[in-house]
Amino acid sequence: MTRADPIPRNRDNDYSKEQAALRCEFIREKTGAILETVSAYPIDPAVTQGNIENFIGTAQVPLGLAGPLRIRGEHAKGDFYVPLATTEGTLVASYSRGMRAISESGGVKTTVVKHSMQRAPVFLFEDALQARDFGGWLKSHLDRIREVAESTTSSGKLNEIEQYPVANMLYTRFCYTTGDAAGQNMTGKATFVACEWLKKNHPLKPDYILSGAIDTDKKHSAMNLIQTRGKRVIAEFTLKEAVAHELLRVDPKSLYRYRQIAAVGSIQSGSAYSGAHSANGLAALFIATGQDAANVAESHAGITYGQLLENGDYYWSVTLPAVICATHGGGTGLPSQRECLEVLGCYGAGKADKFAEVVAAVVLAGDVSLTSAVLAGDWVSSHETHGRNR
Amino acid sequence: MTRADPIPRNRDNDYSKEQAALRCEFIREKTGAILETVSAYPIDPAVTQGNIENFIGTAQVPLGLAGPLRIRGEHAKGDFYVPLATTEGTLVASYSRGMRAISESGGVKTTVVKHSMQRAPVFLFEDALQARDFGGWLKSHLDRIREVAESTTSSGKLNEIEQYPVANMLYTRFCYTTGDAAGQNMTGKATFVACEWLKKNHPLKPDYILSGAIDTDKKHSAMNLIQTRGKRVIAEFTLKEAVAHELLRVDPKSLYRYRQIAAVGSIQSGSAYSGAHSANGLAALFIATGQDAANVAESHAGITYGQLLENGDYYWSVTLPAVICATHGGGTGLPSQRECLEVLGCYGAGKADKFAEVVAAVVLAGDVSLTSAVLAGDWVSSHETHGRNR
Amino acid sequence: MTRADPIPRNRDNDYSKEQAALRCEFIREKTGAILETVSAYPIDPAVTQGNIENFIGTAQVPLGLAGPLRIRGEHAKGDFYVPLATTEGTLVASYSRGMRAISESGGVKTTVVKHSMQRAPVFLFEDALQARDFGGWLKSHLDRIREVAESTTSSGKLNEIEQYPVANMLYTRFCYTTGDAAGQNMTGKATFVACEWLKKNHPLKPDYILSGAIDTDKKHSAMNLIQTRGKRVIAEFTLKEAVAHELLRVDPKSLYRYRQIAAVGSIQSGSAYSGAHSANGLAALFIATGQDAANVAESHAGITYGQLLENGDYYWSVTLPAVICATHGGGTGLPSQRECLEVLGCYGAGKADKFAEVVAAVVLAGDVSLTSAVLAGDWVSSHETHGRNR
Amino acid sequence: MTRADPIPRNRDNDYSKEQAALRCEFIREKTGAILETVSAYPIDPAVTQGNIENFIGTAQVPLGLAGPLRIRGEHAKGDFYVPLATTEGTLVASYSRGMRAISESGGVKTTVVKHSMQRAPVFLFEDALQARDFGGWLKSHLDRIREVAESTTSSGKLNEIEQYPVANMLYTRFCYTTGDAAGQNMTGKATFVACEWLKKNHPLKPDYILSGAIDTDKKHSAMNLIQTRGKRVIAEFTLKEAVAHELLRVDPKSLYRYRQIAAVGSIQSGSAYSGAHSANGLAALFIATGQDAANVAESHAGITYGQLLENGDYYWSVTLPAVICATHGGGTGLPSQRECLEVLGCYGAGKADKFAEVVAAVVLAGDVSLTSAVLAGDWVSSHETHGRNR
Repeated sequence: MTRADPIPRNRDNDYSKEQAALRCEFIREKTGAILETVSAYPIDPAVTQGNIENFIGTAQVPLGLAGPLRIRGEHAKGDFYVPLATTEGTLVASYSRGMRAISESGGVKTTVVKHSMQRAPVFLFEDALQARDFGGWLKSHLDRIREVAESTTSSGKLNEIEQYPVANMLYTRFCYTTGDAAGQNMTGKATFVACEWLKKNHPLKPDYILSGAIDTDKKHSAMNLIQTRGKRVIAEFTLKEAVAHELLRVDPKSLYRYRQIAAVGSIQSGSAYSGAHSANGLAALFIATGQDAANVAESHAGITYGQLLENGDYYWSVTLPAVICATHGGGTGLPSQRECLEVLGCYGAGKADKFAEVVAAVVLAGDVSLTSAVLAGDWVSSHETHGRNR
Repeated sequence: MTRADPIPRNRDNDYSKEQAALRCEFIREKTGAILETVSAYPIDPAVTQGNIENFIGTAQVPLGLAGPLRIRGEHAKGDFYVPLATTEGTLVASYSRGMRAISESGGVKTTVVKHSMQRAPVFLFEDALQARDFGGWLKSHLDRIREVAESTTSSGKLNEIEQYPVANMLYTRFCYTTGDAAGQNMTGKATFVACEWLKKNHPLKPDYILSGAIDTDKKHSAMNLIQTRGKRVIAEFTLKEAVAHELLRVDPKSLYRYRQIAAVGSIQSGSAYSGAHSANGLAALFIATGQDAANVAESHAGITYGQLLENGDYYWSVTLPAVICATHGGGTGLPSQRECLEVLGCYGAGKADKFAEVVAAVVLAGDVSLTSAVLAGDWVSSHETHGRNR
Repeated sequence: MTRADPIPRNRDNDYSKEQAALRCEFIREKTGAILETVSAYPIDPAVTQGNIENFIGTAQVPLGLAGPLRIRGEHAKGDFYVPLATTEGTLVASYSRGMRAISESGGVKTTVVKHSMQRAPVFLFEDALQARDFGGWLKSHLDRIREVAESTTSSGKLNEIEQYPVANMLYTRFCYTTGDAAGQNMTGKATFVACEWLKKNHPLKPDYILSGAIDTDKKHSAMNLIQTRGKRVIAEFTLKEAVAHELLRVDPKSLYRYRQIAAVGSIQSGSAYSGAHSANGLAALFIATGQDAANVAESHAGITYGQLLENGDYYWSVTLPAVICATHGGGTGLPSQRECLEVLGCYGAGKADKFAEVVAAVVLAGDVSLTSAVLAGDWVSSHETHGRNR
Repeated sequence: MTRADPIPRNRDNDYSKEQAALRCEFIREKTGAILETVSAYPIDPAVTQGNIENFIGTAQVPLGLAGPLRIRGEHAKGDFYVPLATTEGTLVASYSRGMRAISESGGVKTTVVKHSMQRAPVFLFEDALQARDFGGWLKSHLDRIREVAESTTSSGKLNEIEQYPVANMLYTRFCYTTGDAAGQNMTGKATFVACEWLKKNHPLKPDYILSGAIDTDKKHSAMNLIQTRGKRVIAEFTLKEAVAHELLRVDPKSLYRYRQIAAVGSIQSGSAYSGAHSANGLAALFIATGQDAANVAESHAGITYGQLLENGDYYWSVTLPAVICATHGGGTGLPSQRECLEVLGCYGAGKADKFAEVVAAVVLAGDVSLTSAVLAGDWVSSHETHGRNR
């Protein structure tokens, strides 16, 4: 068995146009593929250091503008134009329609109700009793552990250590607030240092593994839905009956009835999101603004709740328990990504909650449009069958 | 309440550089944000028609090259270099390391074991008995329904109609194979036509809604894990003990033991993926190749299974029950996206299963690297504490 | 370490009053406990052979009579008086109240919509490809496998073999109808023989384990909710507005609104049953009638669905996807258990579906009563606070 | 529509032999069923007051004795003989076999690691912001709320109030320790009084519903698995290799390998219990000892974890996160039930943790036996095919 050739790297400076071109040429030789557009990037490769390795160029993801979306949040206030990066036709148009329905109904309220980003070490013991007692020790030494963990970060704060004893192990979640960063690395480092301190200072010197797989990083989980991961954000608005009829061509009563049917469908299928399609808006907004798109896995979870009001309007909300987002660090500072954050007034320090509110508002807008389309389509189909054929 | 200004559109030709520039200027006026890099796209806006609305430019997502990855699949065979679009530093390097461990162990076997893409109408009846009997009628008329549904598509094939009766409703999943397309639209249209036919031809003329929320499109679900959505793909390889030690600095025994601990963590947390981080590789590969990144929500679900072998090697596999991907349609034909598919030899007709195999192989590579890092880090930390300080 | 004394057994006849008394005496010596009531059983120990080992007497579980409950099912028709064995005060009274609300509203429709009892062997292979191909072989040889499996039973019928490939294994569910028996043993034997035949006749002679843990016997699972285990049964009725007001002191509008709130609670908590308390009625009815009470674990799963009707009445239903019950075999023939089945007209051959319908109807009655009590309590509390105390 | 006759009741004294006989006679007239054994109860009907309504007699559930089971818990210490009430043949024998394997391996350690019984009111607000701020108020007024709640009970202690904001609502779980009672009623009353106090004293006078359906009473839930309901109990022991071979006819290596396969099956099926059959032992023990058998729904949830040790022995544990049990109140004081608790030395005050430990130990014993039987059966079947038939 011969080994395939390694990808060319340059130890001195791997983030140059030349080096990227070298790799593209390597690919052309190996696969015949010509990376013409990939290579035609308008950015300086040097700025991608820390965000990518073996840089060859950029993926050109089409950006569309949705909105305006009127938000009346704690942090996000005003009319927003939202850049969405997607290749799914109609997505931008559909979200725009939902935004219009929301705006014409008076706007959406948005609220961040909890912050909690985790790293989740598991501690190993001889038996369950040791594990339980270690848990007690964790509680009584929380202040000291917090001090140790927070010594590694300027913005991370250790709020609590959740405990889940199983067998002779103690699974934990170290829960932090992380300022304007998403916080996976920050919490990883802080927790590592705390664990090392625990290993040294607890009488049993317990072995541990830095991830007991309950973080649950880059994956949906019941635990995230229950305990929150990142930010728990709620968006809610009251759809005016007239807007429903005229713009969305649905009746609030149908929306309400469908909510029952969809909730049952959600329970029957065990789905992570009980609304229409959070992931679409999340992915498009995350790619545009330099968020980690893998976090769509966690962030798309959520619960939709509606209520038909006495006056015929329809209260509509979405609760997202695991929004992972940042306005600082990660990909947020890259050129096009930063520009998109700036469109939202969400770049940099002190903007993370504002951005999280925008995220939830966008998700709600997408659900408003798609749900209505599904129902109006039903009406259309009824119309076609029973109307013209009569 | 005054309305915010609408986004400028051009009814005649909305996909021109001028129109995009107009919108960027509009944004500058409204928000102050200057879309310099967003506007510096190297593609013709005209090619984005059908993929985006209100085009303003492109998101520049850094592309890195990982590999080589030796795959010994049914459709994917050979050494692959994998373009990954991400802004998460170390991701490309880490996946590359996992690919090397796999390749040096002889490569990864990949198998697509099931195809099933759905649209999921719910039919409404007076009582459960009617719903059940309608279900019987569906079964006995499947050939005719198939004929109707397939009349709308050249590549979609209706395989079966799953039935889930609840209350006085019949929730169904119309399950298709969809050729090289992901198939959401194809199955939507085919199912709509089939439903209209059912409504006309079944004695009860049943009302229906085209989505009963069990598709479960753009969201993770237990149903997807059980019944498959898109493609169910398995990647498996045997990690050689020597490679584990030398390249990954872990012992297969530790990997095996950790598998137990992580499986328990996965059960305790109710996570959608029992391995390390499928979503990272999926998102990066999906963005690079013009897949719908929102499908990370569904596709990241999966089950990891390992086995310590008598000879000290470690069998390692990942089963992904809901890989949604395409090599035709959607964003696959856009310039940079097509180039990336071509790097993999996966562009166009007859390539979807090959690409799905690459997807699973990449996910496995990422897990190999991260899992080992978590464990070696444990070892490292032990070393730091117990080694140098002695 | 000395061993504790073994429980006295009699190899010749272990099911006599003498032998039971001997064991009670043994217990008195070892623990001081005097089994006076346990020993005062009115049945012949000989009849318990096949149902218990080391017989010492009987648990005296109080039986109360609930009803009448008007059922308008396919198999259960008429007014039923329902024996419930429980030690939870108010349970019988509460179920009776729900039954009255149902009966006064015209009775409950009940429908068994699916039968499927499983044994779930897992087959082990070298790789996923072998496992997948074995799955194809299973499909093409289903008739022969059915013949083999059904050779072991007079009433069991093998309907299908569900397949769930993971890693290099094929998890399967052999799905049967089992006549009037619950069928765990029947399906176990039939599947074992089928597996042995497969192992002998398939070219690969695949190893297997008779349970791959997806049966999922004596435990709740998403798979049961989706695929059915035992019987999937639906009970539904329309609560008349007047009955709601007068008997239950709730308004259908409140019930409907609460349905939304409880559905959200169910999704938030990931609960196995989205109604009020199926397990109470199930346990009480199962113990009374000689069902396996452990099956409450599976059978309590379900979905509640309600709809407010134009005329102010409230459509209320419960769907139970995993009712495990029998009117033949198991504990059904024991003296008090048989008598209770006879009260329902459900003893013996051809009665299982009728009994399953009664089960679902009883569950619905319990939910009607408790849900209303929760809401009326809310009203009461409001009344206390805002009414009389003012 | 004529109404069916009501069940005869006696307002003055409904708990007499005469009144029970009257109802049995009523049943004979209505259904033809003769309640001979049901009527031959050896207890005084008067003692069932508070446990049943419309008393007609008792269900005679066969009791078998399993054991001895050596327990080395915190509270349960020594060799236990365990009364099990069941109608499933072989259950007692199988549990006894598992108990023997445990005892011969040195006994089982048992640990109660958490206490938390809930009532879960939901509070209703205008918007999410109000709900969130109310949550903050709850935290800052916890001491006062605790005082109010605990004023209603001598043994209940309010530990914390978990918060789950969704939409414009705050779902909560009031978490208590409840002494030797299961505590559903105690926590219901205490929480009701606390809610009334909140409604009166919080500036917004918030509406609430006493159950927002996340208790999750009498039903399995992810929330119970994560947050505990009742008692979280762990049982663990090390199966000696020799005992495995000689008594159970399995090899620890096979047990360990099967653990992987069953864990995958558990994840694939989304099952509530990742071991073999907790519900069997729970139901039998609960019925025998006057527990609420409906709680099998919650209590059967759990996680199995095993580890192959260097010396060839096998560490085996089960973690039960939602054991609901009592040694005081409910059905525990009824004659046969009390006798069975006395056999275990678990009747009355101060015994609840001891009893919970016995529960977990019994569950583990059942899994040891059944799991081994499944695997040895595999071996047996191999033997039959490949051995004698050759």
